[in-house]
Amino acid sequence: MISVEEAQARVLRLCAALPAESVPLRAALGRRLAAPVLARITQPPFDASAMDGYALQGAPLPGAVHEVIGEAAAGRPFDGALMPGQALRIFTGAPVPQGASHVVLQEDVTRIGARITLGAGVGAQTHIRRRGQDFTLGDALAPRRLGPADLGLLAAMNHAEVPVHRRPVVAILATGDELLPPGSPQPGPGQIIGSSGYAIAALAECAGAEARLLPNARDDLDHLRACLDLAAGADLIVTLGGASVGDHDLIGQRAGDLGLDLDFWKVALRPGKPMMAGLRGGIPLLGLPGNPVSAHVCAVLFLLPMLRAMQGDPAPCPPPLPAILSGDLPANGPRRHYLRARHDPLTGRIFAATAQDSALTRVLAEANALLVQAENSGPLRDGQAVHFLPLP
Amino acid sequence: MISVEEAQARVLRLCAALPAESVPLRAALGRRLAAPVLARITQPPFDASAMDGYALQGAPLPGAVHEVIGEAAAGRPFDGALMPGQALRIFTGAPVPQGASHVVLQEDVTRIGARITLGAGVGAQTHIRRRGQDFTLGDALAPRRLGPADLGLLAAMNHAEVPVHRRPVVAILATGDELLPPGSPQPGPGQIIGSSGYAIAALAECAGAEARLLPNARDDLDHLRACLDLAAGADLIVTLGGASVGDHDLIGQRAGDLGLDLDFWKVALRPGKPMMAGLRGGIPLLGLPGNPVSAHVCAVLFLLPMLRAMQGDPAPCPPPLPAILSGDLPANGPRRHYLRARHDPLTGRIFAATAQDSALTRVLAEANALLVQAENSGPLRDGQAVHFLPLP
Repeated sequence: MISVEEAQARVLRLCAALPAESVPLRAALGRRLAAPVLARITQPPFDASAMDGYALQGAPLPGAVHEVIGEAAAGRPFDGALMPGQALRIFTGAPVPQGASHVVLQEDVTRIGARITLGAGVGAQTHIRRRGQDFTLGDALAPRRLGPADLGLLAAMNHAEVPVHRRPVVAILATGDELLPPGSPQPGPGQIIGSSGYAIAALAECAGAEARLLPNARDDLDHLRACLDLAAGADLIVTLGGASVGDHDLIGQRAGDLGLDLDFWKVALRPGKPMMAGLRGGIPLLGLPGNPVSAHVCAVLFLLPMLRAMQGDPAPCPPPLPAILSGDLPANGPRRHYLRARHDPLTGRIFAATAQDSALTRVLAEANALLVQAENSGPLRDGQAVHFLPLP
Repeated sequence: MISVEEAQARVLRLCAALPAESVPLRAALGRRLAAPVLARITQPPFDASAMDGYALQGAPLPGAVHEVIGEAAAGRPFDGALMPGQALRIFTGAPVPQGASHVVLQEDVTRIGARITLGAGVGAQTHIRRRGQDFTLGDALAPRRLGPADLGLLAAMNHAEVPVHRRPVVAILATGDELLPPGSPQPGPGQIIGSSGYAIAALAECAGAEARLLPNARDDLDHLRACLDLAAGADLIVTLGGASVGDHDLIGQRAGDLGLDLDFWKVALRPGKPMMAGLRGGIPLLGLPGNPVSAHVCAVLFLLPMLRAMQGDPAPCPPPLPAILSGDLPANGPRRHYLRARHDPLTGRIFAATAQDSALTRVLAEANALLVQAENSGPLRDGQAVHFLPLP
């Protein structure tokens, strides 16, 4: 058996960062920058008023009288200089005129005609946003996954398009004679609905991939080969089921006949089965268990890091987060256990589901976390510090 | 001034849950179920083997010999009953035959021809997944935002399509003569790049909305009216800027002329300006400040709850989460302060940015949280318990 970390390292060796493409800002949410992006302008581009009020030269003094010589609004600057004793009516975002050192708030002055008298409330604050206070020409935004505020910043830096890593295309193939698609008429004897593919495709989409759900493959070499061929053009192939050592686990038993160059490992985790990974026609392939819950846990542990790495993430395996255990847990065996659990961010406590059978898709759907119990851990007690992986 | 909670209650009064539509499972990620969905089948539909091995009648005894009478695989059930002393070769997921009570693991038996001898390792566990152990016909999945595991569960329940609330369509209109679109040639005097719309559109998309970014409106009544008319068909209009009391804040000053039926409030928060909200031609309108950081904070506090409510979320204002403050903070005034901050989920600590000027889009992009400092709070000390809102 190899550790989860060793298996992660091995699947990541199959992946390289995908090339960059340029996309409009409106299509860049959640994408990962492929290179540092440099500001094309300085922001603010000029000293700007932070308030609606009057620009003055020199520190404002209560009782002082100034003559209003003009006006500046955002987009409509005042074309002239300010002298002592003068004031410029100014609005938020407007350029502060030459010679001005302070803006006084409109509520702190009394205006009669073209004259203002400063009130007792005027203070020392300038209410001026200095040129370049936000960023200056050439400042870089380093590669990162782009969130809403990053898109605002890139727009402010005067970029209409940004270079991001291409989305990985993941082809997902569930295998098994027993599988029917959802929405089928009443299943016959021995048949079940193939459901894992929908969850795995959604997980992949949460990680920024484009998922293609292929038709279910029968346990038949020719049909399986034909289905695998449908993955042409994908950046990654994920198979579900057929990966074990059973006589009907064709992917595992007849890898060579299917054009697969695979490694098989026993990974020290549960739920999980022997995993497989390798290449088919140069495309990385990850073989997940057919059991829906095992497949989900293995996808969180192995597929998501592969997709992050393909998008240039240098740290694709985020560490588990701390929580306080609610209730007791029995000792664990030699395989690391990822228990389906609910983490409450308000209290920091985590509750493992009572039923941990790996066939329970309902328990998985109620979980928002995988509670990690270490290999050969003793029993865990209520109130103890534990760690978990959040579920997307 | 009204409180943040009062302002949230008022904007939510403008919103109703949007009608349901049926979408294929592959398009349902992140959507919110509009009604409980009932399982169309029972899962597992039959008692199924949880392992590859042999099905037996009665508890397995080390040394016992059984005669193998056939085979069952997933999708290929065995059509017959099992007698004492008999065994059925069985694979994971296959129906357990009539008469069988246990499955022994293949690694725990020795097989010679059609006979198996049970080894010392056989235990009392049945290795059988009982019919209906996951869910039974008619079990309901209650309305919720659909994550990957929910989609797997709905597929397993034999649904190809599910009813979800329609996505709210949000039209976003930035106003101001000073605004240029990103990617513009070098801005002229007094001009800046309009950036907020990109961040607000992405925030809306994070909350499941479809965002339409309208062209920037000039500070001109006719142009502003024409731009507002472009929002026809939207479920919500968001304006950026023009909402204050300055002479150039047309939306605020000339609401009636623009067909707006608006309320204006001073909300006790910072960063934030007077907000406005109301209706235009029956469509809810939310007026956010022109300042990018203020707009972002107000969108998190008011726009996201509106979008959640429109998708049927009964608790659209999630409570702030606990954290431990790193560093000291000065006392706060009468308005609740939402400080741009970084929360470290590994340590539970939160660090407020040094520069809190509300024009700093770069500081906002580096933040992942808004640290909440209560109205009239005294100084806060390093190590003290505080609360924050995570930023999408």
